[in-house]
Amino acid sequence: MRQYLLGPSFSGQTTFTVSKKESQYLTRVLRIKEGQCFAGIDRNGTIWDLQMESVGKESCTLSCQKAAEGKAKQTTDSMPSYGGPFPRIFLYQCICKGKKIEQIVRQATEIGVEEITLVQSRYCVSDFSNKTEKTVSVRGERLEAQIKEAIQQSGSPIATHIGEKTIKLEDLPKHWNDRGLAIFFHQSEISQQTSLGKLLETVPISTPIAVIIGSEGGFSDEECLFLETSGFKPVLLKTNILRAETAATYAISAIQVLLTEKETQ
Amino acid sequence: MRQYLLGPSFSGQTTFTVSKKESQYLTRVLRIKEGQCFAGIDRNGTIWDLQMESVGKESCTLSCQKAAEGKAKQTTDSMPSYGGPFPRIFLYQCICKGKKIEQIVRQATEIGVEEITLVQSRYCVSDFSNKTEKTVSVRGERLEAQIKEAIQQSGSPIATHIGEKTIKLEDLPKHWNDRGLAIFFHQSEISQQTSLGKLLETVPISTPIAVIIGSEGGFSDEECLFLETSGFKPVLLKTNILRAETAATYAISAIQVLLTEKETQ
Repeated sequence: MRQYLLGPSFSGQTTFTVSKKESQYLTRVLRIKEGQCFAGIDRNGTIWDLQMESVGKESCTLSCQKAAEGKAKQTTDSMPSYGGPFPRIFLYQCICKGKKIEQIVRQATEIGVEEITLVQSRYCVSDFSNKTEKTVSVRGERLEAQIKEAIQQSGSPIATHIGEKTIKLEDLPKHWNDRGLAIFFHQSEISQQTSLGKLLETVPISTPIAVIIGSEGGFSDEECLFLETSGFKPVLLKTNILRAETAATYAISAIQVLLTEKETQ
Repeated sequence: MRQYLLGPSFSGQTTFTVSKKESQYLTRVLRIKEGQCFAGIDRNGTIWDLQMESVGKESCTLSCQKAAEGKAKQTTDSMPSYGGPFPRIFLYQCICKGKKIEQIVRQATEIGVEEITLVQSRYCVSDFSNKTEKTVSVRGERLEAQIKEAIQQSGSPIATHIGEKTIKLEDLPKHWNDRGLAIFFHQSEISQQTSLGKLLETVPISTPIAVIIGSEGGFSDEECLFLETSGFKPVLLKTNILRAETAATYAISAIQVLLTEKETQ
């Protein structure tokens, strides 16, 4: 663990009591002892210097201090890494089958995507619209667990979060609400397809970027037309036809590398 | 399937008889009928126009004709994709645990890596040097199956192959033999670290590029020093600390996108 992701109930308290399950993780798995210091990040992406104050049977208490200059004093693993800037990527991922969507969420979080929203599109093999509330909530918990582990392991300064609700593709433009550049990746030949490099050439690294990735079945022609007329830019990746899970990681990596290389050279 | 990967025994015959297992795949899974045409690729990356000549009980026979201008007349799935050029990427992957290495090989093949060589390094959790011949051969078959499926599904024009032998990290410079640019990705601060963009700036897309990715445990300081003094360039990816499987896909995507964008803009 490079940093500990503080629970959603943390809101800047100077001492914070951690629930049973989390407490066991900290004290038994990571073997953090009373008095030990370690790095934390909250759900807003703020970095905290944490110290294990006391270990009880069912819980433990941490003392929390906002890290100076947004940099933690100590991490349990001191490997240095890139400190930013990071592009602001918002992933709209059409739903794929269980294990695939978990892999996508995991890798997207590691790389530093800000927000992941699940989208129901025409060719989705998994349809969650008529699933029971329990099934949907179990899936949500699994994805949350992937995100938590990825943030803690990767030391990402971005507190990736997943949209509470799955949205329909037709509601995507309203949900995105023109916050910045929006790109959808599609392998078929559409008129006016731009190259990713050209599209990002004049985009500052601070611009929010929506990345729309299809499901296993890709997008229908109608969906492409709809996205295009809604102002989303079609991009053909200069590679082979990728499965959904590879396409997501490829697209996010490509955008991040093109923008960070431009920024920091 | 976008193209059929011809078996290693194919060497340009005008008719080719396919073994039982493969024959069942073509006739029962893909339901290819007598007379039907489809695209093929051989282990050298040559594209073939194939036709199902006859279907027997235990095998089937294909007629094979070299595709004109390296482009197949027909594919079972006609989705167009990027036609090249592709950078020539040679992946040296330090061995990771079973499922992880399969995921890496699968994604690297989809994206279009030319050759994958497994490397035994100091922090490898899986050590295959003292495994039985059978275990090693089962692993090899699993990886071959991943490669085959990926080539067939992605329509990759690159006949990715895996090195027959696992090599030791210390033998890497000899194995690579200065064929082109060699890069290793490492998250710690090494002197003279260059940015990937700078490093590729003057590299033509046809240059062979070796990409060395660590295992779950990364590289030791000695290994980094050894690689550097052997002429391998250290690169710190401008992202978070990635797990080995994400790092491989990220690095390959990054190199491909930087070189193809430069080439085709």
